[in-house]
Amino acid sequence: MTTFPRRIALLGSTGSIGQQTLDVVRSFPDQFQIVALAARSNVSLLAQQVQEFKPSLEACFADTSEARKKVQSLLPDALLGEQGLLAAATCPDADIVVVATSGLVGLKPTLAAIEVGKAIALANKETLVMAGHLVMQAAQRAKVPILPIDSEHSAIWQCLRGEAAENISRLLLTASGGPFRSATHEQIQAVTVEQALAHPTWQMGPKITIDSATLMNKGLEVIESHWLFGVPYEHIDVVIHPESIIHSMVEFSDGSIKMQASLPSMHLPIMNALGYPLRLNSEKAGLIRELRWAEVGALHFEECNLERFPCFRLAIEAGRRGGTYPCALVGADQEAVELFLAGEISFLQIAELIETVLERHHSIEQPDVSATLEACCWAQHMVRELWKKSASKLKSNIKGKRT
Amino acid sequence: MTTFPRRIALLGSTGSIGQQTLDVVRSFPDQFQIVALAARSNVSLLAQQVQEFKPSLEACFADTSEARKKVQSLLPDALLGEQGLLAAATCPDADIVVVATSGLVGLKPTLAAIEVGKAIALANKETLVMAGHLVMQAAQRAKVPILPIDSEHSAIWQCLRGEAAENISRLLLTASGGPFRSATHEQIQAVTVEQALAHPTWQMGPKITIDSATLMNKGLEVIESHWLFGVPYEHIDVVIHPESIIHSMVEFSDGSIKMQASLPSMHLPIMNALGYPLRLNSEKAGLIRELRWAEVGALHFEECNLERFPCFRLAIEAGRRGGTYPCALVGADQEAVELFLAGEISFLQIAELIETVLERHHSIEQPDVSATLEACCWAQHMVRELWKKSASKLKSNIKGKRT
Repeated sequence: MTTFPRRIALLGSTGSIGQQTLDVVRSFPDQFQIVALAARSNVSLLAQQVQEFKPSLEACFADTSEARKKVQSLLPDALLGEQGLLAAATCPDADIVVVATSGLVGLKPTLAAIEVGKAIALANKETLVMAGHLVMQAAQRAKVPILPIDSEHSAIWQCLRGEAAENISRLLLTASGGPFRSATHEQIQAVTVEQALAHPTWQMGPKITIDSATLMNKGLEVIESHWLFGVPYEHIDVVIHPESIIHSMVEFSDGSIKMQASLPSMHLPIMNALGYPLRLNSEKAGLIRELRWAEVGALHFEECNLERFPCFRLAIEAGRRGGTYPCALVGADQEAVELFLAGEISFLQIAELIETVLERHHSIEQPDVSATLEACCWAQHMVRELWKKSASKLKSNIKGKRT
Repeated sequence: MTTFPRRIALLGSTGSIGQQTLDVVRSFPDQFQIVALAARSNVSLLAQQVQEFKPSLEACFADTSEARKKVQSLLPDALLGEQGLLAAATCPDADIVVVATSGLVGLKPTLAAIEVGKAIALANKETLVMAGHLVMQAAQRAKVPILPIDSEHSAIWQCLRGEAAENISRLLLTASGGPFRSATHEQIQAVTVEQALAHPTWQMGPKITIDSATLMNKGLEVIESHWLFGVPYEHIDVVIHPESIIHSMVEFSDGSIKMQASLPSMHLPIMNALGYPLRLNSEKAGLIRELRWAEVGALHFEECNLERFPCFRLAIEAGRRGGTYPCALVGADQEAVELFLAGEISFLQIAELIETVLERHHSIEQPDVSATLEACCWAQHMVRELWKKSASKLKSNIKGKRT
């Protein structure tokens, strides 16, 4: 992990982080080289990427027959399915594997890549939330670094450079607070999908944008921080910082606080993870806009109001309880957000459904990969069941009123 | 410099930084031990300190007969004059020398301490401003660290932990802007000594408080940063930050910015310098108040308006020109501030006098210690001369009007 060029296997190359990773590779051709590309279903874009970066291996892990057909015509050499994804993750040419897949699919290839000694640049949230104990143990055993691709964890990681772990007194994650930071309970009750998708400072996919509005995303980041930096939950706090300029902070035992700042950009954490310990020259790349303090004017900080953000509280509770609670949290959230985006439930019902699922969950301690994925699927299923019941109850209520 | 307890020689023990250094030593008796104390003229306080800390050597470097008499009665074993100060600086028992003397007197003992291999914790501003080239060369030769005791430089130093020097793109010093940050030119023209002494965020001695109001202090800190961190002047900027919570920042080549924060406190930079690389536990010491972000609310940033702060511009120019210009700057400022504090000149005349002195100065390249001190004395003398002339001109003007 000290020599350049670094050879990269990129899992999830057609998503937002995947494409921004390719921006970085394109800007620093002497430093980075793509040796494997894997994407789910955007076969046309994957084919373009293959043409541009000429990897030694490409994979498409979609399981629809439509995608398979498209692959056969556009990328006849591509490997398919989960096997293809695992082949990309363990590609012998690669020094570093960027895990930028979304959802549950990142866990197995991450563990497989660690087993064969690859450095991991991790953008997939669910992997650490659900199986932090497995990933960190495996990484320690294989002596490979887990490099965070996420503005908050990258900030903490940068603040910890040259500092001893025993000197950490507190991690302080910043949160923009999303679009409903100052909304009343009544206003939140009436939130539409459109309003929830309008994030004030970051442009992201729909699932993570809703997770940011509920602050579930920040709760998941607290769980990730716990695993990445080995800090107990009682020493991880969140502060609302609407401008998203300070990406997180570390407080040390002497009371000194270090914080990392930049204009909101995912290129920077990607450059940090791929280039570490080198800091690449962003001026050359033209990827990062310079932060001008006089233009920024003011940075604001507020306490994180837990009553306004029940999803945040649920995430922290699941993290503290451990076992398969975080897996159930991830599954329940995934399904509840999908129902909200489909217009089937209200914004506040996201938290209500997750809370009910977690109450009914029977956790297993130290789950293995399959127990982890099982708990997650169980929670997804449970959300659907609860929703169907409440929907039919609602219907019969309406019926009752009419008679 | 890695073992504890560390044995400390403290020069300037009765001043503000000296007393706060003793607070830190008192709070961490297992980590630190005082082996030498030196003070100028506050003999009674020095005697108390000697009784409490029982150093193996004490020195009083005042040259008044009154102080000498007092020393003879209270501290008969104390060494006297410059020889006493040099003996404290080179005390064989000491691992680290804290240079907390004010003004020119710090230079010779700092160089003497470096020669015999002591680590230097430097709170004296003039030493680096006037003779940065001599001090840094000597420290490099003797392989001793120069540890900054100053909130701005300590902040930069902390942000640079674990970072390579070639990755620095810019140092950004924060400045509170002093009491006249938002004043008009007319208001600044009429500033009284009392107004200038009312610093909004820091409690300090009168000279440095006036230097903060003119921003001369920030200009001197830019020169110090240049020497301490080896960064060219064009890569050192200043941003106004009225709350004095962010103590300074470093911008790296990738566009990432690291900053250090705490409530205003000199105990923290002292703890950092004396304890490095250990971070002492401030909770145990009760010296540092915890920073609560929700209470802070907002941090503000503004551009540094050079027209409002001519002393800042003069300092940067003197630094860039090098030679003995910074020495002349220090001497002229010292004398001009004294005249202002005595009610003899107006606030704006401080900068006018310094500017005239710098215009008339004949600089010497790579000055040695005596050339350094000579240039400083010349500038002090020149300020007095200019003031006398303008005062007599003023008198004759008044006379002329009367006749």
